[in-house]
Amino acid sequence: MTISQREVHLINHPDGMPQPSDFAVVETSIDDPGEGQLLVRNDYMSVDPAMRPRLSNGQQALNTPMMGGAIGTVVASRHADFAEGDCVQSQQGFCEYFLSDGKGLAKLDPGELPVTLFMHVLGGTGLTAYGGLLVTGELQDGENVFVSAAAGAVGSVAAQIAKIKNCYTIGSAGSAEKCDWLKNDLGLDAVINYKDGNLRQDLKAAAPKGIDVYFENVGGDHLEAALPRMNPLGRIPVCGMISAYNTPGARSTGITTLSNMIYNRITMKGFVVYEFNDMREQFLSDMTGWIKDGRMKYSETIHNGISEAPEALIGLFTGENIGKMLVKLSD
Amino acid sequence: MTISQREVHLINHPDGMPQPSDFAVVETSIDDPGEGQLLVRNDYMSVDPAMRPRLSNGQQALNTPMMGGAIGTVVASRHADFAEGDCVQSQQGFCEYFLSDGKGLAKLDPGELPVTLFMHVLGGTGLTAYGGLLVTGELQDGENVFVSAAAGAVGSVAAQIAKIKNCYTIGSAGSAEKCDWLKNDLGLDAVINYKDGNLRQDLKAAAPKGIDVYFENVGGDHLEAALPRMNPLGRIPVCGMISAYNTPGARSTGITTLSNMIYNRITMKGFVVYEFNDMREQFLSDMTGWIKDGRMKYSETIHNGISEAPEALIGLFTGENIGKMLVKLSD
Repeated sequence: MTISQREVHLINHPDGMPQPSDFAVVETSIDDPGEGQLLVRNDYMSVDPAMRPRLSNGQQALNTPMMGGAIGTVVASRHADFAEGDCVQSQQGFCEYFLSDGKGLAKLDPGELPVTLFMHVLGGTGLTAYGGLLVTGELQDGENVFVSAAAGAVGSVAAQIAKIKNCYTIGSAGSAEKCDWLKNDLGLDAVINYKDGNLRQDLKAAAPKGIDVYFENVGGDHLEAALPRMNPLGRIPVCGMISAYNTPGARSTGITTLSNMIYNRITMKGFVVYEFNDMREQFLSDMTGWIKDGRMKYSETIHNGISEAPEALIGLFTGENIGKMLVKLSD
Repeated sequence: MTISQREVHLINHPDGMPQPSDFAVVETSIDDPGEGQLLVRNDYMSVDPAMRPRLSNGQQALNTPMMGGAIGTVVASRHADFAEGDCVQSQQGFCEYFLSDGKGLAKLDPGELPVTLFMHVLGGTGLTAYGGLLVTGELQDGENVFVSAAAGAVGSVAAQIAKIKNCYTIGSAGSAEKCDWLKNDLGLDAVINYKDGNLRQDLKAAAPKGIDVYFENVGGDHLEAALPRMNPLGRIPVCGMISAYNTPGARSTGITTLSNMIYNRITMKGFVVYEFNDMREQFLSDMTGWIKDGRMKYSETIHNGISEAPEALIGLFTGENIGKMLVKLSD
């Protein structure tokens, strides 16, 4: 039986902020699985800031499904390792259904936890925060930590790990609602609404003992303000620079405070999540424990239906999400 | 017998480029050494880019001798460890003569080498290049290296160490004369006159295999151009950012290419020479060997007389020096 399904294609490489017209929802048909194949129905798609650079740097081809992660359910299988009803995590891109030979699929057993957690706190998002802060950032117990975009998916995990490690933790976010969540629900020591005030002055006031680790998600004005506040031997793990993704090159905010790195012997270091693959077991053990004992909280911002995927992606850059941005495809 | 001597004071904290009027040559008198003291006549003073930040950040007090290193001769001694005629290195600042109780003085035995080498290739300047490139920069044999301000005192040592380590070595400098020296005397593989051309395009052309280590002396346009050329896991030891010293804050060139650090997992790290004190013996052994076998060349730009010290310092920022800037006080 052939089924029809929809997928999201990039049809134009955006220069600045992506527009809905840069994407198309395309209908295709899929045959029944052949021998050794299985058919997956995606239930949730992950929407991540890291998708943005790929739209313009050549990694995301036009007229093919947007690259991205998803969680789905096996609806038909002629593959020995997968049975109907299995929950699987994939990197097959933004589509409702796909055929697979099983390669690159991971079976999930979420147990009592919501399956979507494997797309954020228990997935690559969480591992990014965990490895970036503890390995790249070499976080020590009790240090002074600043996390930008702290209400984002990665930032909210990083900020909470810092708190769990007894750090004085400052977070920035772009709305009063996000700041309330950070302060009252996540228990950060200080929060900065970077759209309402003077970031540089506010950060100075929020960091009376300086900053030992700045977990960098934003770049631009945030990095400009953080560098003069860094303590000697401070570390800046660079996870992302979301402020620059839609204003490339000369249009983005230039950083003029880098000379602070010299006398304070600051290390700034870019990292990518795959570096931390070998610590996934420890990560899952720690994170599951923290979720269960209530020290690791999370939030999801959910769009419904594949046609909302472009809007969800654009929403990351307009600050729409608290926590993880997801697109729900199926109940 | 009281002698009169001159010293150079800072009398005004400069905001932009230092002016001769920011300094004063002041005459003072010095008594004969008392018991346990010695009198030193400075022969050469070291003029270094790192002096510039101190003029504005509060480290250099007004109406006191400019902080700085010198090499001199003991002309009278009532100290058990020093005899008349001893050659001594000091950090007593810009003055012709000074009394000392011996603390902070190092006796030098230059042997067959010119004594001034202990102010550059065999001194802190050389150790800065050596440690910054080999330790902070984690240089590996045969890598691709870019050194900015490669005709400067630190840069020329760093570039030659890179060549000794069989690296493809690119240097930038601000005049045809300096570029000729780098190419023809020091044997660099590629040179860029950053005042004559398009730095970004020229660096791209000069680095066909990218850059593994960028030894950063300049900041600004140089860093802006280097970041997109960095290879995966590249390192940027940050020794100085001379382009920013006289144009602080918002007036300096802002860096917009830092997001290149993320996917290429670049490390940028500030360092200070005292980190490398415990490797001084190995440094002196290596460097002496390289000087003697002709692989480490050097150049000195010498001003005569203490009253030229302000001019010499300003000359560092107008690009006057090839190699080490010195002020000669005595034959």
